[in-house]
Amino acid sequence: MSFDLVFFGGTGDLTWRKLMPALFQAFRHGKLPAGGRILAVARDERSDDAYRDFIRERFAEVDSAKRPSDAEFAEFAQLLHYRRMDLSQPEHYAGLKQWVDARGADTVVLYLATSPYLFPVICEQLGAAGLNGPNVRVVLEKPLGHDLASALEINRVVRSVFAESQALRIDHYLGKPAVQNLMALRFGNALFEPLWRRESIANIQITIAESLGVGTRGDYYDKTGALRDMVQNHALQLLTMIAMEPPSTSDADAIRDEKLKVLKSLRPFTPETVARDVVRGQYRAGAVDGKAVPGYLEEVKVPPDSRCETFVALRTEVQNWRWAGVPFYLRTGKRLGARNAQIVVTFREVPHPIFPGTRCANKLVINLQPEDGLELHLLAAKGSGNNDLLSPVSLDLDFDKAFPSERVGAYEKLLLDAIAGRLNLFVRSDEQEQAWRWVMPVLEAWAADPTPPRPYAAGGWGPAAASALVARDGCTWAEEQ
Amino acid sequence: MSFDLVFFGGTGDLTWRKLMPALFQAFRHGKLPAGGRILAVARDERSDDAYRDFIRERFAEVDSAKRPSDAEFAEFAQLLHYRRMDLSQPEHYAGLKQWVDARGADTVVLYLATSPYLFPVICEQLGAAGLNGPNVRVVLEKPLGHDLASALEINRVVRSVFAESQALRIDHYLGKPAVQNLMALRFGNALFEPLWRRESIANIQITIAESLGVGTRGDYYDKTGALRDMVQNHALQLLTMIAMEPPSTSDADAIRDEKLKVLKSLRPFTPETVARDVVRGQYRAGAVDGKAVPGYLEEVKVPPDSRCETFVALRTEVQNWRWAGVPFYLRTGKRLGARNAQIVVTFREVPHPIFPGTRCANKLVINLQPEDGLELHLLAAKGSGNNDLLSPVSLDLDFDKAFPSERVGAYEKLLLDAIAGRLNLFVRSDEQEQAWRWVMPVLEAWAADPTPPRPYAAGGWGPAAASALVARDGCTWAEEQ
Repeated sequence: MSFDLVFFGGTGDLTWRKLMPALFQAFRHGKLPAGGRILAVARDERSDDAYRDFIRERFAEVDSAKRPSDAEFAEFAQLLHYRRMDLSQPEHYAGLKQWVDARGADTVVLYLATSPYLFPVICEQLGAAGLNGPNVRVVLEKPLGHDLASALEINRVVRSVFAESQALRIDHYLGKPAVQNLMALRFGNALFEPLWRRESIANIQITIAESLGVGTRGDYYDKTGALRDMVQNHALQLLTMIAMEPPSTSDADAIRDEKLKVLKSLRPFTPETVARDVVRGQYRAGAVDGKAVPGYLEEVKVPPDSRCETFVALRTEVQNWRWAGVPFYLRTGKRLGARNAQIVVTFREVPHPIFPGTRCANKLVINLQPEDGLELHLLAAKGSGNNDLLSPVSLDLDFDKAFPSERVGAYEKLLLDAIAGRLNLFVRSDEQEQAWRWVMPVLEAWAADPTPPRPYAAGGWGPAAASALVARDGCTWAEEQ
Repeated sequence: MSFDLVFFGGTGDLTWRKLMPALFQAFRHGKLPAGGRILAVARDERSDDAYRDFIRERFAEVDSAKRPSDAEFAEFAQLLHYRRMDLSQPEHYAGLKQWVDARGADTVVLYLATSPYLFPVICEQLGAAGLNGPNVRVVLEKPLGHDLASALEINRVVRSVFAESQALRIDHYLGKPAVQNLMALRFGNALFEPLWRRESIANIQITIAESLGVGTRGDYYDKTGALRDMVQNHALQLLTMIAMEPPSTSDADAIRDEKLKVLKSLRPFTPETVARDVVRGQYRAGAVDGKAVPGYLEEVKVPPDSRCETFVALRTEVQNWRWAGVPFYLRTGKRLGARNAQIVVTFREVPHPIFPGTRCANKLVINLQPEDGLELHLLAAKGSGNNDLLSPVSLDLDFDKAFPSERVGAYEKLLLDAIAGRLNLFVRSDEQEQAWRWVMPVLEAWAADPTPPRPYAAGGWGPAAASALVARDGCTWAEEQ
C-alpha cells in the first residue's frame, strides 16, 4: 500500500521531537508500509537534503536507544522530502496537489502539526485545491480549540471539506499501549466485566501527574491551564474507556458511540457544584527531586498576577444504571510529586469480613506512565503460623517485560493507524464537542469567581482541598494510602 | 502457656522425618510457646539423652536449611524427653499420666504417630488411665481407616473417650500456606466471590501429581491405592475449600459445617457413573527426568498381579445452586510428568467477543507445590502497533517472595495449631466419614469389576482415558493447554 504522509509544520517541535522519531521507529521495526513518501512542508526554502540534515541533527536530541545509526538514517532519509509552502497561498496548495497526483499514492495523510489557529485556513485551502478526495485523511493535533465555540468553528470548517471518517483528531494518550489495553482487559476477558459496575466498585481515580513545570512555554500555558490542557481531552478520554458499555463490535464507530454516551452521561456542572466538586490550584516554589524550583508566577512569560490553574482535581459521576453513585475523581497538575499517570479502580470492601485484622479494599491499578503495567491488590494470608491475619499483596504485570520488543509508542501507533485508516483511537468530533460542553460550566464559573487558584508547594500533590474533596466520600488518593 | 506434647510412635519415620523438624522450625522461629515439653514414647528402652542423640543424627537427613546448628540443637534438645511404653500395658499409661500430672501443663497434646490399627487401643487405654481430661487433645494421623466401616469404628472409639473438639484429625494438605490462602482469597477479598459460581466458572481442576513411584512402600501402597491415599482426604479437602459457601465466622465449626455441606452435595456415584466418570490407572515402566524407571508391578513388595490403582481421575459435580452443572475434575497419581499440586479455576469465555484472534478463557491457578503461588491468566493487547490481537499474559504472585521468612510449613502450622487449640485446619469426624461415604461406591464398583486399571507410561500424565474424560465436556487438563 503506497502512501504519502505530509507534515504541515514540518520544521516545528512536534514534527522533529515526536513524529519523525516515531516514524523512524516504525520504519526500523518494519511496520511502516513499503512505498511511502514523507513530505515536510514549511515556510522557508530548503532542499530535500537540507531537510534530511536538519532531521538527522535533531535526532541527536532523541532518547539514545531510539537514535538511528548512520546506515539506518541514510535508508530512512530516502523517504523524506521537503517542500516550501506559504499556507495562505492557494497556488502552493495547487503545487502540493500536483506533487501528490504525480505519484497517485493509495493513501494521502495530511498531518496538521501547526498552531490550531491555522487549521481552518489550511482545511479551506486543501478543499479549494481539491486535496480532499476519498483517499485523503487529515490529522488534527490538539488543542482543537480553546472552548466549545472555537471547537465548533474548527469542526464546522473541517466538516465542510472532509467527511468525518477523513478527519482524525489525535489524543496521543489513546495511543499508549496501556490505554489500548483497557479495552482488551475489559472486553477480551470474562473476569472483569461482571465486577465493572456500581455493585462492586467503590470509586475510580484517574491521575495524570507531571513533575515538570511550564518551562519556557509559560505564555502558551497561561492561556490554556490544566483543565483545557489535560482534563478536557486526556483525562476524559481515559474516563470514557473505563466507563463505557461493551460495544457490539470493535469498529471505530461502535466504540466511539459508546464513548460519546459516557460523555453525555457525565453529571453536568453548575456554579454550585463547581465550587463544591472542583479544586483548582497553582504551584508555588518548592522542591522537586531535591532541587529547588520556582513557583508558577515566577516562571518566564507568566504574568505575575496570573490566575491560571496548574492543577485540577474534580469529582464527577456517570449518570447511568452501571455507575450511578460511583465517584469518578480526575486529577492532573504540574510540579507534582512524581511523573505518574494511573487509573485506580477501588472495589467495595467485603460485605461481611470473617477474618480479624486488616480490612483493605481490593484495587486494580492501571499504570500508564512512567511504566506501563497492571497491579491487582489483594489480601492474602501470610501463612506465618501463629495467626491468620491478612496482608496486602499485589499481582503484577509489567507489559514491557511481558512483551519485550513488541511495544510501540503512542505516536508510532497513531501514525501507523492514520496511514492504515484505523480510526478506533482517534477522537470523533462529537466526542470532542461533548467534552468541551461538559467543561464549559467550569471555565465559566472560574471566570466569574474572583478567588485565585489555591496555592500548593511544587513537589507535593496539590492543594489540601484536593484531599478534602475525596475525604468527603471517605476516600483518599492513591499516594495517601 | 505451658504444654506437654507427646508423640506415640516417637522413633518412627513420621516423627523424625516430619514432626521433629517442624517443631524445631517453630522453635527456631520463636513461634513455639515457652514452657513446653516434648515427650517421645516408644517400645524400646532409652534415656532422654539417647533419644536426643537419635534425633540429632536424624536431622542430618533433613533439608540443610532446616538443620540446626550444634548450639541450636543443644537448646532445642532440652525440650525433648523419652519414655518407654508398651501400648498394651495399662500401667504404662498410668505412668504417663503421673508424668503429665506431675507437671500440670495447661495443655496436653497426644499425637498418635503410629499405625492406625493402634488408634482404638491407644484411645481406650488413654481413657481408662484418665488421660482425656479437658486440657487434653489427641491428634490422629491419616489413614483414618481403610473404608467407611473402619473409619466409623475408629471414630466410635475415639468419641467414646474424647469430645469432638479434643480429637484433631490431621490432613497435612490443610496446613499448606496455599490452602489457607484459598480461604483468605475467597473471603478476605471482594473481587473473587461474585465470580465464584456457575455463572462465571466453566470448570475446576484439582491435580495432585507425584513424580515418584511407590518406592519401598509397595506392600502398604498396594493395600491402599490412589483413591484412598489421596482422593478421599487431600483432594476432597481441597474441593471443599474451593466450593464452600462463605461461613459466617472464621470459627472452626462454622468453616467445617460449610465444608461438610459441600461433601454432602457431591453427586453420589453409581456403578454406571463410576464406569463413565472415574478413570483408574497403573503405571508401567517409563522414564522420569530422563531416567528409566520400572513399572508398578515390578516394584518391590508389589504382587505381580496387583490391580491396585496408582492413578485416579474423576469428574463430579457439587449439586447446589452455586455450582450446578460445573464439572469438578480431581486427578492424582504416582509417576506422573511432574511433582505438581495445583487447582485451576477456568472461567467461562467472554459472552460476545469483539476482538479478532485468540479466544482463551481466563484462569486462576493456585499452585500448592512445588512452589506456592497464584497466577491469573488474562488476555491483553500486545500494543505491537499493526494489529490489536490479544495475547495471553499472566499476573503472578509468588508467596515465598511476597512474604520471605514468614512462611511456615504444613506440619509446623498444624503442630502449633494443635498446641494452641485452633481447630480450623483439622478435619471433623463427620467430614471424614462423609468423604468415605462418597468414595465407597467407587471402591465397591472397582472390586466388582474384573477389568484391570488402565496402564500408563511412567513420566506421562496417566491413561488417555483421563484426557477423554475431560474432552467429553470440551475441556483439557492444564498441561495439555
